[in-house]
Amino acid sequence: MSLKVYFDLMSQPARAVVLFCKVNKIPFTPKPIALRKYEQQSEEYKRINPFQKVPTIQDGDFKLTESVAILQYLAEKYNVPDHWYPKDLQARSKVREYMAWQHMNTRMHCATVFIHEVILPRATGTPPDEDELKQHVNTMHTTLTAMEDVFLKDTPYLCGDKISIADLLGICEVEQVVASGRVVTAGRPTLQTWTDRVKTDLAPHFDEVHSLMHKLRDRSKKN
Amino acid sequence: MSLKVYFDLMSQPARAVVLFCKVNKIPFTPKPIALRKYEQQSEEYKRINPFQKVPTIQDGDFKLTESVAILQYLAEKYNVPDHWYPKDLQARSKVREYMAWQHMNTRMHCATVFIHEVILPRATGTPPDEDELKQHVNTMHTTLTAMEDVFLKDTPYLCGDKISIADLLGICEVEQVVASGRVVTAGRPTLQTWTDRVKTDLAPHFDEVHSLMHKLRDRSKKN
Repeated sequence: MSLKVYFDLMSQPARAVVLFCKVNKIPFTPKPIALRKYEQQSEEYKRINPFQKVPTIQDGDFKLTESVAILQYLAEKYNVPDHWYPKDLQARSKVREYMAWQHMNTRMHCATVFIHEVILPRATGTPPDEDELKQHVNTMHTTLTAMEDVFLKDTPYLCGDKISIADLLGICEVEQVVASGRVVTAGRPTLQTWTDRVKTDLAPHFDEVHSLMHKLRDRSKKN
Repeated sequence: MSLKVYFDLMSQPARAVVLFCKVNKIPFTPKPIALRKYEQQSEEYKRINPFQKVPTIQDGDFKLTESVAILQYLAEKYNVPDHWYPKDLQARSKVREYMAWQHMNTRMHCATVFIHEVILPRATGTPPDEDELKQHVNTMHTTLTAMEDVFLKDTPYLCGDKISIADLLGICEVEQVVASGRVVTAGRPTLQTWTDRVKTDLAPHFDEVHSLMHKLRDRSKKN
């Protein structure tokens, strides 16, 4: 099988790429890279991705990093339904608009809450600084409000009437925050409806790819 | 003229969009939005771009934000030479890889140095905190090293043998830092050669669009 996908299911953008392949039945050789074991820092992996991050794909000799670029490549290379990355220029541009916007918004701010609430306390054995965490949570909520008020204002999906690669990236970021037991959609009916809708569309692969995140969530709930 | 471009020449991504239109002779109605006068916060502009940022384009009834999405839209809609955003899937994917990477790298870190070195001192009348600025400069240099070691390692342009929309975004970020009088390419022959090459390709529009930045630079040199 010529397409290799390097991933860790703890990584939001890596999950988006794996989900896309599974939902669209794109055959690939899974190449797990355990971030907790720093496997991304090996010399071997550095030759595949000089930034030492996941995901990466290798298709024959062609290597590609950056989830946004990877999802567009896969959508264009394989014969996937048009709604994932529409051929219509305006519709496709709206998908690209969200994908550009998300880097400094959903991607950055949901991940920051996850890092401060889950990763750093585990790494240091110290609970999060409550004031600092509150600031990060507030910033994340500003982003989630924008997601609802702009991207989900008039349409059931982030960029239109059907699911696209933008929704895949979005749902994987939003779902990262639940690992601490946080109910990220509380008081947000628009976001709740969207997450339910996207998860239904992605069943059963959504839960399969999020099993590790959901284990963390369930463990947090018990504490 | 149906294409409207909302911009401020102080904004790096707005300059990239204006440059693209000028170099490719795409006719547009210029719609300057003066950030220093907070014109982006007007109710009128909010209806055009809910994020209250520049650039934005409006093509007939179609509005689009995010420079990365705008440049792809313009390249696909107008009959521009293929090298700007190649039709070949692998070549196009490499352009998208840089454009995704730059958000949290060149875009973020060059802008942070500019804000701390130029904008905040002017706004507050206080010189920059030297330790803080040094940290930001170091982070920027990590990004510039990655730009040289990865994207410019084997090719004269960021994503191949010819100039693309990735180079446009890149040069406008790198050129922002010179406003303080800082020589960002000092000790970086690879970056220097690339900036010279790109500026030559974009002449005379590069200097035209950067006249305000260069005025700031020349004023800083005199101090």
